[in-house]
Amino acid sequence: MESIHPQEPVDPQIKKRVSESFDRQRLMKLYGAKLTGIGRGQIEMTVPSSETLLRTSGNFHGGVIAAMADSSGGYAATTLHAEDVSFLTIEFKVNFLNQARGSKLIARARVIKAGRTITVAQSDLYTDYNGAEIQVATALLTFIKEKK
Amino acid sequence: MESIHPQEPVDPQIKKRVSESFDRQRLMKLYGAKLTGIGRGQIEMTVPSSETLLRTSGNFHGGVIAAMADSSGGYAATTLHAEDVSFLTIEFKVNFLNQARGSKLIARARVIKAGRTITVAQSDLYTDYNGAEIQVATALLTFIKEKK
Amino acid sequence: MESIHPQEPVDPQIKKRVSESFDRQRLMKLYGAKLTGIGRGQIEMTVPSSETLLRTSGNFHGGVIAAMADSSGGYAATTLHAEDVSFLTIEFKVNFLNQARGSKLIARARVIKAGRTITVAQSDLYTDYNGAEIQVATALLTFIKEKK
Amino acid sequence: MESIHPQEPVDPQIKKRVSESFDRQRLMKLYGAKLTGIGRGQIEMTVPSSETLLRTSGNFHGGVIAAMADSSGGYAATTLHAEDVSFLTIEFKVNFLNQARGSKLIARARVIKAGRTITVAQSDLYTDYNGAEIQVATALLTFIKEKK
Repeated sequence: MESIHPQEPVDPQIKKRVSESFDRQRLMKLYGAKLTGIGRGQIEMTVPSSETLLRTSGNFHGGVIAAMADSSGGYAATTLHAEDVSFLTIEFKVNFLNQARGSKLIARARVIKAGRTITVAQSDLYTDYNGAEIQVATALLTFIKEKK
Repeated sequence: MESIHPQEPVDPQIKKRVSESFDRQRLMKLYGAKLTGIGRGQIEMTVPSSETLLRTSGNFHGGVIAAMADSSGGYAATTLHAEDVSFLTIEFKVNFLNQARGSKLIARARVIKAGRTITVAQSDLYTDYNGAEIQVATALLTFIKEKK
Repeated sequence: MESIHPQEPVDPQIKKRVSESFDRQRLMKLYGAKLTGIGRGQIEMTVPSSETLLRTSGNFHGGVIAAMADSSGGYAATTLHAEDVSFLTIEFKVNFLNQARGSKLIARARVIKAGRTITVAQSDLYTDYNGAEIQVATALLTFIKEKK
Repeated sequence: MESIHPQEPVDPQIKKRVSESFDRQRLMKLYGAKLTGIGRGQIEMTVPSSETLLRTSGNFHGGVIAAMADSSGGYAATTLHAEDVSFLTIEFKVNFLNQARGSKLIARARVIKAGRTITVAQSDLYTDYNGAEIQVATALLTFIKEKK
């Protein structure tokens, strides 16, 4: 795993923990999703196009886009904590901006507010369409820190 | 396909069209989703629990819940039209209300406003947990009628 | 104050507390809003039409509708607690469904999930237009219980 | 009116039209809101703190924040059109990030997608608190171009 758009490096221990947690997520495996970037408060994930993830129109299904937004936002939240903390999604909203066609779907999430109880993140989603990135969606997500 | 919670019957032609369209959706097939109810402006879909759809916590993944909300809302919109119309999701918001564990996930959508261009639907999501239904999420969704 | 659409009566002490708190809200006073109904987990508020609350189109301003959704949802949350608890709005989403014209704007909120930390409410908004109620908006709102 | 954060200058005719339209908005006048910046696809508005706009806690009321988000997003959409076009708000979602206290409330909106029918904008809201800007909210808004 490499960090494609890091702004601030993240502790190697946190990187390892996030990476291992991601590998246990079966839905991400089902989609063929990879963790392709990690920074402090930032996550990038990438899903290659495959027939089952597309609508009959050839666009990535909104449910796949939403799942990637949710996962990327949640992992972005965990990168800010040294301890093994997990976050539950309280709610999110996603706007679809352009037709989601292309060879892969990329989710880039960043934390915009990390509170004591509540964390808010935004995830921007892109497709790679003939070598150019097109923004296909943006999501605002609210998480609650879960006591372990 | 039977209508589990119909309030107003839907034209058999529309029922056939929705059913055939649903059967072409590969993501729904991947999830094992079935169309279990249809009425005027209403759709019910059911997904049996399976390992790939669950988080490591044993709850249905938020991305699966969101996909079911999106699909059920979109199909609910199409039931109001005699012609073969399709709807694009502009945006949606989903609130997670309870832990999503149980033997199946049920999405029940209804149109709350069918405008000339814009249709708004709400989808309520439940799990069957030891024989009792628990509401696990609610979503508000906005669609735009697509010209064919 | 009378309860217009009560489903379950609320304790008189709670009613008194909510009513007094409402009377201290200056924005509600500025709008001319009244508390017109209260039940367990339910609030109704009404605002008479006045020039300053309308867009130049003659419709109630979306910001006024949003404010009424927010206030009604927050007060609905407090009706479920015997102690003097307050709720902060984490986020909300509002869909505008029809032109908001008429002699008054009515917000009817109900709690759909009261958790230990997080409460979710829905507020439906109507105008009285020539004696008929028209639903002009619906909002989903998330609150966090504030420690006092 | 000056442009505080312009990225791309806007045509003087459009600036004049937006400014005149803003001056007709009575709710903005009631709040004491001023148009303090305009660029291509961008609007900034500022509201000075005043007792009626605050909760009893001393924070700007969420309804005022929502109204500023809505207005700034809608005007940002109009800056992209030479003709006198207006936009109706279909829906929006706002997340509250920090306590909204300070001497003024600033809304900065930018269009993130201008489609043929649908326009999506984001509005970030700040307070000036002892000379420092604090982000108090962010909103995602969906508009539909209105035929005149």
